[in-house]
Amino acid sequence: MDMQAKTIEFLGRIRSTAPLVHNITNFVVMNPSANILLAAGASPVMAHSRQEVADMAAMAGALVLNIGTLAEKWTDAMLLAAKSANQRGVPVILDPVGAGATGYRTRTVKHILGEVKISVIRGNASEVLSLAVDGVKTKGVDSSLSLSAEIVDVARAIARQHGCIVAISGEDDWVTDGNRVLRVSNGVPLMTRVTGLGCGLSAVAGAFCAVGQDDLLAAVAAACGYYGLCAELALRISDRPGSFFVAFLDSLYSAGTDEIREHLRIE
Amino acid sequence: MDMQAKTIEFLGRIRSTAPLVHNITNFVVMNPSANILLAAGASPVMAHSRQEVADMAAMAGALVLNIGTLAEKWTDAMLLAAKSANQRGVPVILDPVGAGATGYRTRTVKHILGEVKISVIRGNASEVLSLAVDGVKTKGVDSSLSLSAEIVDVARAIARQHGCIVAISGEDDWVTDGNRVLRVSNGVPLMTRVTGLGCGLSAVAGAFCAVGQDDLLAAVAAACGYYGLCAELALRISDRPGSFFVAFLDSLYSAGTDEIREHLRIE
Amino acid sequence: MDMQAKTIEFLGRIRSTAPLVHNITNFVVMNPSANILLAAGASPVMAHSRQEVADMAAMAGALVLNIGTLAEKWTDAMLLAAKSANQRGVPVILDPVGAGATGYRTRTVKHILGEVKISVIRGNASEVLSLAVDGVKTKGVDSSLSLSAEIVDVARAIARQHGCIVAISGEDDWVTDGNRVLRVSNGVPLMTRVTGLGCGLSAVAGAFCAVGQDDLLAAVAAACGYYGLCAELALRISDRPGSFFVAFLDSLYSAGTDEIREHLRIE
Repeated sequence: MDMQAKTIEFLGRIRSTAPLVHNITNFVVMNPSANILLAAGASPVMAHSRQEVADMAAMAGALVLNIGTLAEKWTDAMLLAAKSANQRGVPVILDPVGAGATGYRTRTVKHILGEVKISVIRGNASEVLSLAVDGVKTKGVDSSLSLSAEIVDVARAIARQHGCIVAISGEDDWVTDGNRVLRVSNGVPLMTRVTGLGCGLSAVAGAFCAVGQDDLLAAVAAACGYYGLCAELALRISDRPGSFFVAFLDSLYSAGTDEIREHLRIE
Repeated sequence: MDMQAKTIEFLGRIRSTAPLVHNITNFVVMNPSANILLAAGASPVMAHSRQEVADMAAMAGALVLNIGTLAEKWTDAMLLAAKSANQRGVPVILDPVGAGATGYRTRTVKHILGEVKISVIRGNASEVLSLAVDGVKTKGVDSSLSLSAEIVDVARAIARQHGCIVAISGEDDWVTDGNRVLRVSNGVPLMTRVTGLGCGLSAVAGAFCAVGQDDLLAAVAAACGYYGLCAELALRISDRPGSFFVAFLDSLYSAGTDEIREHLRIE
Repeated sequence: MDMQAKTIEFLGRIRSTAPLVHNITNFVVMNPSANILLAAGASPVMAHSRQEVADMAAMAGALVLNIGTLAEKWTDAMLLAAKSANQRGVPVILDPVGAGATGYRTRTVKHILGEVKISVIRGNASEVLSLAVDGVKTKGVDSSLSLSAEIVDVARAIARQHGCIVAISGEDDWVTDGNRVLRVSNGVPLMTRVTGLGCGLSAVAGAFCAVGQDDLLAAVAAACGYYGLCAELALRISDRPGSFFVAFLDSLYSAGTDEIREHLRIE
């Protein structure tokens, strides 16, 4: 699989078609997620009322569910939206923010996974592994685990169990469909000092899935690689979080074929 | 009507009196709307509880209603706040974000327009026209229409029907009271790559209406012109969305009489 | 009390232990509060569901309650979280945003103060004084009072009444435990032109209290001083609000021992 060519192809489609990405996400990241999607070339919409989520998801290219500031009515809306997306074949990305930190979040993610078909689960290691392993503890919304071969094995098992792509973010990102495993080495540690950059990656994964439905494993890996290399470009502008985030948005907007050819590291 | 002189006068009043602008707005733009109002010189407050919206609207210089992430309780709060504003003669600005995209949003806007007196409706073409025309379809929250003389005619009809100002944003902005039509040619396309800049304009229109109640048509056009010229100034600093938005806030804060004399384009 | 040494000590602990700060805060500032905490070195989490707030508060180093966009369910969640924090000895910071502006906010703050043990109250003068004095009126969420010796006396009385630290922000910040009074002279007026910087200080005070439980008076004063000097450093980069805020986040991340030695002004 030539991931450079695929990433260039997917990004070109996003910028030429501006796919609608429907987000039911948390209050902390609604604004940056919208700006991240716009900078990348997609068309974001945030909508959570049970009165309209089915309609909105049905017209979207992808649906992104994020449990970062969860409350009960929002879970209901997520299920309604996802059922509508499932009927139309719209890919659904689930970001289990803080799963493992409280029983409520872990239970809710498992409930969602039981009720609807999820195409992609993307989170940090402790969030994702809390879905499979008892005893993995998340500290607030930050991961408490380092990656290892063992963790990748659990990710593969989760992917096989739910028939979905699993992406684990960390120093390297690991993306698997349960069989194949891709390793994405783009990204910089400063990303953890800006809120919502993980959530923003889930949103961008939605945009890539919207234009890459025929190969979701490649679409998610391409999203991770493009996102991480934009962070690398931003780090050249600033190594402090305020101006780094501004430069990151600028890079998402301006990075293209040349930058992907030079910097993408997926294997 | 000398729009330069009026814009300078309105902006001066905002900066000397810091009018309180009460926003019941969507989660995506609460933060930038507050920052945009503060940069321009106004005093923003966000409050949506039915326990306090009538009190807050009664002490405000303007009330801004925005349906971007609508839910039922919020509609109730909007109606309570608007009734309180109506009783006190406080102008009410309505931003019908995403009207036309889902039936829920279109119905809600029409319900609000039926229940309370709205002073200004501001949106993009497909949002505003969804209030009048069957079959105009909004893609998420972005306009699916280009402006034309025909669209301006519909805007005038809506303004006459509701006895309000209608402002349609696009390549040019059109502002009408149902009779007179002003064309504002300030602004830059990059504004569409930053989330909430349309919503921010509705908030700034609230600030201008708070100090320009005797001539709301001029107040809204002045808001559009000032806002658009600040975007033009920002584009000189950066043509990428992250740093463009930072420069835009800076311009809203620093632009004044000289910039208005040189750059305002309203006819 | 050597406030320089204490501030350096507290900041070092924050950066080495990354205390979890649980925020139940308003929609306007969730994103900047999280970014401010991350830049300073803490680990923020926002969670408001009654299903999980007790769990989250119990594992946090501090709990920050902020009533900026209040609604009834959120008050219930604040009480549940605070009771859990009280049981575990986790310090609770209360930011009474807009108290005095509407009866609903004033009543709610008084209700919270009656039900749970608050460790720190931090707000502007009119907000804090609305808790004690009839007739102090807040304009939206901005203070309508100048500081004076009289105001400091009321702050001391409130601190004694509730057995807590009271911090009043303004041109100077005043921090008192009811007996001792510290005056913090760091900070710049441009901070009032960026939304949520007061709320961000309450969040940072939470981080300092998490690592300074043995001396909350010093912890809160240190937070105020460090925060204000970072604003002074940012003002050297820009005197306009958009780029000032970016530089402020950068300073929160990079300022350390040298800057505290040179700029901290607490007496």
